[in-house]
Amino acid sequence: MTDWNLPPDEIEKRSFAIIDSEAGNHDWPPDAWTIVRRMVHTTADFEYVGSVRMHKDAISRGCQAIRSGCTIFTDTNMARSGISARRLAPFGVKVECFMADPGVAELARQNDTTRAVAAVDAVLDRLDGAIYVVGNAPTALLRLVERIQTGDARPALVVGLPVGFVNAAESKDAVAGIDYPYITALGRKGGSGVAASVINALADLCAKGDDHA
Amino acid sequence: MTDWNLPPDEIEKRSFAIIDSEAGNHDWPPDAWTIVRRMVHTTADFEYVGSVRMHKDAISRGCQAIRSGCTIFTDTNMARSGISARRLAPFGVKVECFMADPGVAELARQNDTTRAVAAVDAVLDRLDGAIYVVGNAPTALLRLVERIQTGDARPALVVGLPVGFVNAAESKDAVAGIDYPYITALGRKGGSGVAASVINALADLCAKGDDHA
Repeated sequence: MTDWNLPPDEIEKRSFAIIDSEAGNHDWPPDAWTIVRRMVHTTADFEYVGSVRMHKDAISRGCQAIRSGCTIFTDTNMARSGISARRLAPFGVKVECFMADPGVAELARQNDTTRAVAAVDAVLDRLDGAIYVVGNAPTALLRLVERIQTGDARPALVVGLPVGFVNAAESKDAVAGIDYPYITALGRKGGSGVAASVINALADLCAKGDDHA
Repeated sequence: MTDWNLPPDEIEKRSFAIIDSEAGNHDWPPDAWTIVRRMVHTTADFEYVGSVRMHKDAISRGCQAIRSGCTIFTDTNMARSGISARRLAPFGVKVECFMADPGVAELARQNDTTRAVAAVDAVLDRLDGAIYVVGNAPTALLRLVERIQTGDARPALVVGLPVGFVNAAESKDAVAGIDYPYITALGRKGGSGVAASVINALADLCAKGDDHA
């Protein structure tokens, strides 16, 4: 039955019930399922139930960072727009994106690299304890992996969800191969919307105290 | 072979070649395929090849509107962010989103409706010749369909791509059922990113003169 006048909370509740009933068997523990379920909710795509990979410390480190009022960097203004300011305001978290920054464009030209890579390098000295969200650029995610491996970047959490047919899957394989807090989804699918949804789900876990951090 | 240093243009070219080779048989004519292919590119999801529906006048009316420097209204700031300002600047097109407008919040309270519905009603007198992009809210899309059917709204084109498990598919069935320029995709999938990609593809068609408008 179509009911056009349902309040947003009720729509979300019904949506989650549908997802729970259609997701089939899976081994996600409750806190991780809060994240994966929101990714399915954002995309209407059950592939994420099987494709998501999370480092064992991803949720605890991500929630600690949010509770500490960390900065969240994104590789797209879409992801920045999709992250709920209302959910994050209580924690004093700021969300920043430098893709359109003139200094980043200049740095990219100087280093003959992409703006997405330059945007990572431009904030290296601010990454300690931050969260970096990649919803678009495989090169940004690979640069983060490189900088983490050399010890030059120490974010609390990397959310790596580039989408696409060239290098996206490879970049997510790379982040899933390091022993460092990450949330990703193998394969081609991803995007700014689903990347933002991961942060919104983490904020929900923080608000409810369900993250055991 | 992974090549991390490909320029963005080359990545797009390779991506489109992969999509063309994997899409299988379909009946989309070249101008419509430019749009559907970009939707697949944005989502890495080939379901759109079969689920997209376009009114016969959608491309010509959409391109006429863009060439006329129309206003594009979106139901999310994510969709607004995802629409390429660079692609639209040559046409003088402006993109606006009123979801966070205090007047819209007040109108929603007064009328006991959603902000997404109030955001449609708030711009009714500016919809003539405009494009309305719905990437999230089924209620916004249904309101547009109602207002078009009563003759109170006369946009050039409706891009209707709500995503989700409650009312999204129903709202897209509704827009696909009217004889009015629309672009939609049946079923649950959609979202702000793919909705924005439709506009970006239309802008490409306009720039190349491939729309036959």
